[in-house]
Amino acid sequence: MSKLRIGIIGFGTVGTGVYKTLQDFKDIEIVKIAVKNINKPRSVETPAGMITDNPYEIINDSTIDVVVELIGGIEPAWEYISTAIKNGKHIVTANKELLAKKGEELFNLAEEYNRVCLYEAAIAGGIPIIMPIKTILAGNKINKIQAILNGTTNYILTKMDSDGASYEDVLKEAQALGYAETDPTGDVEGFDAAYKITTLATLAFKKRVKLENVYREGITKIRKEDMAQANEFGYKIKLIANASIDDNGNADVRVHPMLISKDTTLAHINYVTNAVAMSGHPIGDIVLSGPGAGEFPTASSVVGDILAIQAEFGKTDYMLPMMRCHHDSKANPVHIDDTYNKYYISITAPNAIGVIAKIGSICASKNISLASILQREVLDNNTATIVVITEKCQEKLIKEAVKELDNCTVDSLIRVAE
Amino acid sequence: MSKLRIGIIGFGTVGTGVYKTLQDFKDIEIVKIAVKNINKPRSVETPAGMITDNPYEIINDSTIDVVVELIGGIEPAWEYISTAIKNGKHIVTANKELLAKKGEELFNLAEEYNRVCLYEAAIAGGIPIIMPIKTILAGNKINKIQAILNGTTNYILTKMDSDGASYEDVLKEAQALGYAETDPTGDVEGFDAAYKITTLATLAFKKRVKLENVYREGITKIRKEDMAQANEFGYKIKLIANASIDDNGNADVRVHPMLISKDTTLAHINYVTNAVAMSGHPIGDIVLSGPGAGEFPTASSVVGDILAIQAEFGKTDYMLPMMRCHHDSKANPVHIDDTYNKYYISITAPNAIGVIAKIGSICASKNISLASILQREVLDNNTATIVVITEKCQEKLIKEAVKELDNCTVDSLIRVAE
Repeated sequence: MSKLRIGIIGFGTVGTGVYKTLQDFKDIEIVKIAVKNINKPRSVETPAGMITDNPYEIINDSTIDVVVELIGGIEPAWEYISTAIKNGKHIVTANKELLAKKGEELFNLAEEYNRVCLYEAAIAGGIPIIMPIKTILAGNKINKIQAILNGTTNYILTKMDSDGASYEDVLKEAQALGYAETDPTGDVEGFDAAYKITTLATLAFKKRVKLENVYREGITKIRKEDMAQANEFGYKIKLIANASIDDNGNADVRVHPMLISKDTTLAHINYVTNAVAMSGHPIGDIVLSGPGAGEFPTASSVVGDILAIQAEFGKTDYMLPMMRCHHDSKANPVHIDDTYNKYYISITAPNAIGVIAKIGSICASKNISLASILQREVLDNNTATIVVITEKCQEKLIKEAVKELDNCTVDSLIRVAE
Repeated sequence: MSKLRIGIIGFGTVGTGVYKTLQDFKDIEIVKIAVKNINKPRSVETPAGMITDNPYEIINDSTIDVVVELIGGIEPAWEYISTAIKNGKHIVTANKELLAKKGEELFNLAEEYNRVCLYEAAIAGGIPIIMPIKTILAGNKINKIQAILNGTTNYILTKMDSDGASYEDVLKEAQALGYAETDPTGDVEGFDAAYKITTLATLAFKKRVKLENVYREGITKIRKEDMAQANEFGYKIKLIANASIDDNGNADVRVHPMLISKDTTLAHINYVTNAVAMSGHPIGDIVLSGPGAGEFPTASSVVGDILAIQAEFGKTDYMLPMMRCHHDSKANPVHIDDTYNKYYISITAPNAIGVIAKIGSICASKNISLASILQREVLDNNTATIVVITEKCQEKLIKEAVKELDNCTVDSLIRVAE
């Protein structure tokens, strides 16, 4: 068997992890590594001439079989990947943003050129999720996903919970430790998780989900009081990527904080760990958890994808049909206002008695049932905190109800997982 | 593409689940189903003539490509499977006992005839574990597994914990509900879990583990008092299948009850759910959980294996090399007496003060450090319960220490997971 020849574009944390891991595989040869700055110090030594600052030395090298793209972002990644496919190369990528924004174009192009684009590393780091859905779970109709897909926000929420600290304080600490970026927007506003759930739902539902139809809400408004109150009711607060689809192909896909029962596995997924809970038929419910990022866990997924290509490589009629991600069919989006959820509402009120009556009558007028209500001790100035958890009701009705609560302040409105 | 032609031997719960699930797959045709009693009522209707009581109508049918074996046990399953392989058929099986006892012969035979034997359904029911290890995790060196692989015992232990009930009472209830068999030995004495960990460790470590080298201890001696005391120390008691291997190929594989910290995911795996925690490089730690048995979850795995064969079927040079399970290399067994563990010891003593001194001096003489010690209230007759948790020490030393505690009763000695 001839060696599988690899070119790597991008040589940061994940790239060096891939490089180190591949040293044990004698049938795989790293031919070239393209970087932005050739003089930057690296944690691994590479043979002379292996590193270049010209990615086209990989993309246009007719002896290279697989291009591993690890630079992230849309451009120039898309230019590199699309040219590489046209040049007959298979792609392994960890680029969640590109998959979410240009997945359709990407997989159509791969289909046209009879090449595969594998992306286990783009979703949930080291957790085996993409390949299992394509292979051993292929007999299933998956109809629901609830997942923790962003390590930074899960770290922040875990620390807020364990330390009773505010979002701002924990963010600063996470930035100092390198768990959050200087501009944390991509993580804390849910963009990263939205990219990942877009691609994961598309694969699991076998229907293309569009990023612009994915509702997104970050964790910046979660207060330490919400953490404490959620605990009292038997919940943790997590940033959950949700996706569900009904028999008519209506897909409800969204990322937002949720109260999640302590009885569930997801409630116990802490710090930078990721987890994916999936339901389908015939399998029922499964939960896969593990490291969502990092040099080696992500390298595990990249190398797994490379080995999958190697296993098929050189065959007469190669590439497993199940490895393809081309979907002609599109999911029908469901607007967030049309979804049904349970809600946690935390209210500051000048006078508890009157407010509880008002909450009751407003909710009754909208046909919203209350599951629990808790009035916390009245403060010095006669102000009370009231926490309500509703039964399942339509999002647009809860928004109307909240607007009508005009004599008090709604501090938090957070959805509650069933 | 021609249809993949399937014969099923055994048509119980899993078989009917497979039959129902495969109805959605137009490229797969169930040709024949062999049963013991042709007149037994079934939950599905099958076309006239599909059911036979002669399995050789499948095994000797040259038009059948894949034999799905779902009868379990060694004979006649081995006779059927081995003849089918010799007749050129691929095998999909859920037979954990056969894999554990005759895996080496089975995979050698499959290798010889260039056929595959897939067995996702044999280990942890619906949880995707075998195929992921063979594919997307193939870049890893897995060196540790801790798993809950038997639903019956996990159900019993969960109920003992939640209800404060005795083993005997919960077993009766589990039998009434169909979660435990009339003769529960295979489950409660750990045989079932031992079969599964033998096969799982062999695959994960890429070295053949022999069933006779797997230490096994069941749950029948776990007392409700142990459950309560474990809780006080922050643990749950679970039947854990353990496997670890060092760099020299020494494999420590065993099944026994363990105290497991409430901080871990495994501690929260309840009732009939299964879970597999694995560690390796580069991936780090992952946990996969889901339904360990049942008609549909197990069918998911059987159908996943059939689809994997279908994906490769008809190719010129077919069968993924990664699907093979042939291992020339053997693991070196580690005897339980030579392993190092933490221990929970529950003691009934006539006089607590003297006993604590004695425990201390015996342990000191064996170089065993004590991590925690708890004396529970002295009973009417001046008898006390003392609970000790040790630091890590060698199994043979703890056994010696326990023997020397001759003036009191050691009610329980249970290993504690790190």
